[in-house]
Amino acid sequence: MNPKHYAMFLGPKGENASTLERLIVEALRDTVFWRRNFHPADERLIPERIKRDSEFQDAVDLLEQELFGLLARLKQDIPFFSPRYIGHMLGDQYLPAIAGYFATMLHNPNNVSLEGSPATTEMEVEAAGQLARLMGYGPRAWGHITAGGTIANIEALWVARNLKYQGLAARAAAQDLGLGSIIPGTDWELLNLGMEESLSLRQRLVDAAGGDARAVDAALARHSISGAGIHRFFRAHPDVRPGVVIVPVTAHYSLAKAVEVLGLGAGQIRAAPVDERFRIDLDALRAILDDCLQSRTPVIELVSVLGSTEEGSVDALDEIVAMRRDFRARGLEFFHHCDAAWGGYIRCLLFSENGELIRTRPGEQDRRPAALLPEPVFRAFQATGQTDSATIDPHKLGFIPYPCGVALFRDERLRELISFEASYVFHEHEERARPFIGRYILEGSKPGAAAAACWLAHRVVPLDETNHGAMVGMTIQGAQELYREALGIAPALLESGIVLTPLTDPPDTNLFCFAANLAGNTSLERMNRFNGELYGLLRFREHDVVQRHEFILSSAELGFAHYGLERPRGGNSMDGFLGRLGIPPGEFARVGKIRILRCSISNPWIVAARGGNPDYVVEFGAVLRRKLLDVAGSFPAA
Amino acid sequence: MNPKHYAMFLGPKGENASTLERLIVEALRDTVFWRRNFHPADERLIPERIKRDSEFQDAVDLLEQELFGLLARLKQDIPFFSPRYIGHMLGDQYLPAIAGYFATMLHNPNNVSLEGSPATTEMEVEAAGQLARLMGYGPRAWGHITAGGTIANIEALWVARNLKYQGLAARAAAQDLGLGSIIPGTDWELLNLGMEESLSLRQRLVDAAGGDARAVDAALARHSISGAGIHRFFRAHPDVRPGVVIVPVTAHYSLAKAVEVLGLGAGQIRAAPVDERFRIDLDALRAILDDCLQSRTPVIELVSVLGSTEEGSVDALDEIVAMRRDFRARGLEFFHHCDAAWGGYIRCLLFSENGELIRTRPGEQDRRPAALLPEPVFRAFQATGQTDSATIDPHKLGFIPYPCGVALFRDERLRELISFEASYVFHEHEERARPFIGRYILEGSKPGAAAAACWLAHRVVPLDETNHGAMVGMTIQGAQELYREALGIAPALLESGIVLTPLTDPPDTNLFCFAANLAGNTSLERMNRFNGELYGLLRFREHDVVQRHEFILSSAELGFAHYGLERPRGGNSMDGFLGRLGIPPGEFARVGKIRILRCSISNPWIVAARGGNPDYVVEFGAVLRRKLLDVAGSFPAA
Repeated sequence: MNPKHYAMFLGPKGENASTLERLIVEALRDTVFWRRNFHPADERLIPERIKRDSEFQDAVDLLEQELFGLLARLKQDIPFFSPRYIGHMLGDQYLPAIAGYFATMLHNPNNVSLEGSPATTEMEVEAAGQLARLMGYGPRAWGHITAGGTIANIEALWVARNLKYQGLAARAAAQDLGLGSIIPGTDWELLNLGMEESLSLRQRLVDAAGGDARAVDAALARHSISGAGIHRFFRAHPDVRPGVVIVPVTAHYSLAKAVEVLGLGAGQIRAAPVDERFRIDLDALRAILDDCLQSRTPVIELVSVLGSTEEGSVDALDEIVAMRRDFRARGLEFFHHCDAAWGGYIRCLLFSENGELIRTRPGEQDRRPAALLPEPVFRAFQATGQTDSATIDPHKLGFIPYPCGVALFRDERLRELISFEASYVFHEHEERARPFIGRYILEGSKPGAAAAACWLAHRVVPLDETNHGAMVGMTIQGAQELYREALGIAPALLESGIVLTPLTDPPDTNLFCFAANLAGNTSLERMNRFNGELYGLLRFREHDVVQRHEFILSSAELGFAHYGLERPRGGNSMDGFLGRLGIPPGEFARVGKIRILRCSISNPWIVAARGGNPDYVVEFGAVLRRKLLDVAGSFPAA
Repeated sequence: MNPKHYAMFLGPKGENASTLERLIVEALRDTVFWRRNFHPADERLIPERIKRDSEFQDAVDLLEQELFGLLARLKQDIPFFSPRYIGHMLGDQYLPAIAGYFATMLHNPNNVSLEGSPATTEMEVEAAGQLARLMGYGPRAWGHITAGGTIANIEALWVARNLKYQGLAARAAAQDLGLGSIIPGTDWELLNLGMEESLSLRQRLVDAAGGDARAVDAALARHSISGAGIHRFFRAHPDVRPGVVIVPVTAHYSLAKAVEVLGLGAGQIRAAPVDERFRIDLDALRAILDDCLQSRTPVIELVSVLGSTEEGSVDALDEIVAMRRDFRARGLEFFHHCDAAWGGYIRCLLFSENGELIRTRPGEQDRRPAALLPEPVFRAFQATGQTDSATIDPHKLGFIPYPCGVALFRDERLRELISFEASYVFHEHEERARPFIGRYILEGSKPGAAAAACWLAHRVVPLDETNHGAMVGMTIQGAQELYREALGIAPALLESGIVLTPLTDPPDTNLFCFAANLAGNTSLERMNRFNGELYGLLRFREHDVVQRHEFILSSAELGFAHYGLERPRGGNSMDGFLGRLGIPPGEFARVGKIRILRCSISNPWIVAARGGNPDYVVEFGAVLRRKLLDVAGSFPAA
């Protein structure tokens, strides 16, 4: 690890505590002196004599005592900072992010509008703009910070829903305004307009209406999903089939939530099976799209996943983008949202220090972080700029504290589709002078401190392969090293009657998953119990002393409804994995779920400590081996 | 002000800086030593020799330099902490909230589930539970922290939407399952079931289906809004009219956003006019409900507002609750959501130190904070427990930093209506052992630090009239004193040809609004320009040095579409106000908007500093008088 990267975290032993303390105290004092500069002659409102009052002193005592109570309770917390914590996507945060958050929290700006945050609204626009460029979006992009990826995913689908039906709304508005047939096309054609065309419809109406934007917006409000609601809208369009949202089965549950909240109905999700690497099955996706085209079913949104929650898998974005082009040529258009909440920052591996996109995967011998990505993953990340919207969570691989998600859109005009006021209310010069983010987003009030934290981290650790990309690369390398260690201990374990198998070969990103089985056991229930017991020794145990935790992993249950979905060429995503574990076909359908263990590597320490004392990779292998033998030794015979 | 209250803020001059610094440093060191306790024998991963490396030192320099850059930019920020800032709902935060947030941020727990936050999920449940009790909800209540009031308002309407159509869904599910007519009633009756009955339908189906919860949930998913979506649902119920959401015109714009996002359509809002105190017009509300009853239009939700955004007005909750009882008896049932984002904490004025509800308004001579509330406002706050859900923003009158909103529900079973997984998936004992808040809310990942901040503040400053209620009372008193000061300077101003008039007489809560006019001017345009120029001198001016700001106010434009809505007994909410300003009837309709100035008092300092140097109330009067004379002196003749 480059020495400079060691300066960016507090460290597992608080090694950089003195730096953080200095910065925090500096920030606090700076705020205090700033306060004194505002009307310096105004008298102090908390007189020193009151501080000598026993009631004042009792209050300070109470505050201190209760804070110590909080600190005591926090000692029950999970040591996310440690290389021994490889459970969920939680690690140590960047020092600039912590210091930036704290410094700004003392001001407590509200980024809902510039009136509450003259400094931090600009930082939000800058930081989100950096992420838009990271994803490959052009200068017309729009992005902002959200409370998290769930909100960003909902917002993107909100935009996609309103966009999908804009053509039908515009035609109805034109008729209403007596503008004749200036919006030509069949229902189906209007449901499959390109984004550019959909976004230009309002202006076309305004021009036809002699510039009367107010009348056009009122008519659009009467006929759009937004104004009329789904209920009335489809009464006016009885022949239009309910639209669908296509997601891979690996998609985060927030996407189901989004479909439900927006009134589309969870039943309108078309779940696509994934392949044995947990990337969307492209044949299945094509079949779903073909079916939608033939049945005249509008596709509201396709979601691709860059870094699935359970497996860290990366959908073949390059292929999906190409497939979209094909279907567009055949008259099927849809919004493409990329859920890169987990994996978005991995794009940093693809930017050289001078900001250029690395288009060819470096060779292993180059020792550049992009070489860590499997070739298909590298190719997928090339195509991010051709999606319509994306979610990235700085509070995951950006090493920013909660709450910090980001919603990105390829074209800023999309935000007008979810703006609650017509755009004519504010004049453009006012808008530029006083950005009012709250008008264009799902949330209202929100912390400027989150924007400052993200902004400062991006400034100190730029989004390229030698800086932030190097850090993210180490999380991926960490997963690969654990994976190789597991492969390394597998032969000896097999001699002891235990089969140990990685879920994917190798992992796509910074998640390494595996399961184990007793050699010869063919019962999936029994295997699940076995892995459940193993997990019991490797999970965070609230009631056990924290030092007893050698490693802290997480676990997942992969359900048959999703992972057992039949693939077009036969079989399902788990066939190979279960086969390697000695579980016969049919068991998955019968039992309904497969328990796996899951290592999420969210900090660079595992890699940085290679060869150290302990070497966490070697230690992981040793602990895993010992626990497996323990569980097997006491596991009841079949 | 009680001496103990002086200990709770950093103070306008940073008077309590040494206390905060001590607590912050203590919290940081505590975390550092906690880190060292986890596997103490593991070697330090950031070796001291690396800290001597020039690249490491350059990185620390860069971090420090960029942090100073942030601190420099933050100096453009608005001095929210000062008694001279009376713009938006932003003031100083409680020291326990700042210290609690910071201490917890160093751990960075994720309150989406207990697995990411063993300590702070409990704090969230405790803090939200305190607010549920504050509102008067019983032991079955459910509450949680959100990113802010907007999210809480959306979530409440999400629940209300799914609840409204549960009866029709259950009947269809019963038919689907061949359970006959166990859900009797007409469409209209099923659209007007009581909450208790709607929530019991699923269990009734499960019992009838011989305990097969899985089959019942699948059938409900096929026939509910949640599973089928609005589009398919209403195809199955073609005779049901689109439902409406009733809100007073003073409601926050997030309610329009909520209606739109949820697919109900902004056009389905029935806006009720308000009276001259900006409380919902009860005659108008009754007329809307009568109309819905007669036209068989389902009412999805009625929103009442405790503390309107522009005016701080409080709807007559006691009367609304009584009206709901009447309509219920006539067969019209609806969900009642109370948007108390602003005013929820005012309920603290109604609790004595021993936790008892104060049911009779104290006399002025009692000097208890509840006496500050006008009698109708006091009565309204008595009735909060009879609503179905509520939004409270701790990041407003709770003095907690962003982000911290709270969503509260009277009955915890309501959350099942928006849970994305059927409840049988998790067994009840698991649920109690491992609360997974993310399953029941709109958001996903969220900061445990916000929960800790709110929890610690509630512990140090309890929610009663002698503690937090006293602080909130001082914000109300501050508004009343500015109001009285404005009345006091009005006669002399009138002699100089300027009419100065408060918007309400007196303010309901901690907001004081007013406008001025040149005596004899009858043009509303001219009056708006006059107030616009006045606002130009009293708003935050980004490009002016901060010391030049004597007071910082905010402003609002009240639009005719909302505030000009005809009241059943004639006239609109602005008639009296405009009359006092000398603007003839008809001007509002012609011009379309009225600009007012707005003072939001968000800290106790204005009251605490009475008689001090300066006395901000007297100073406010003097500044306002001078600015009014300045504007009038240079204002062009008509």
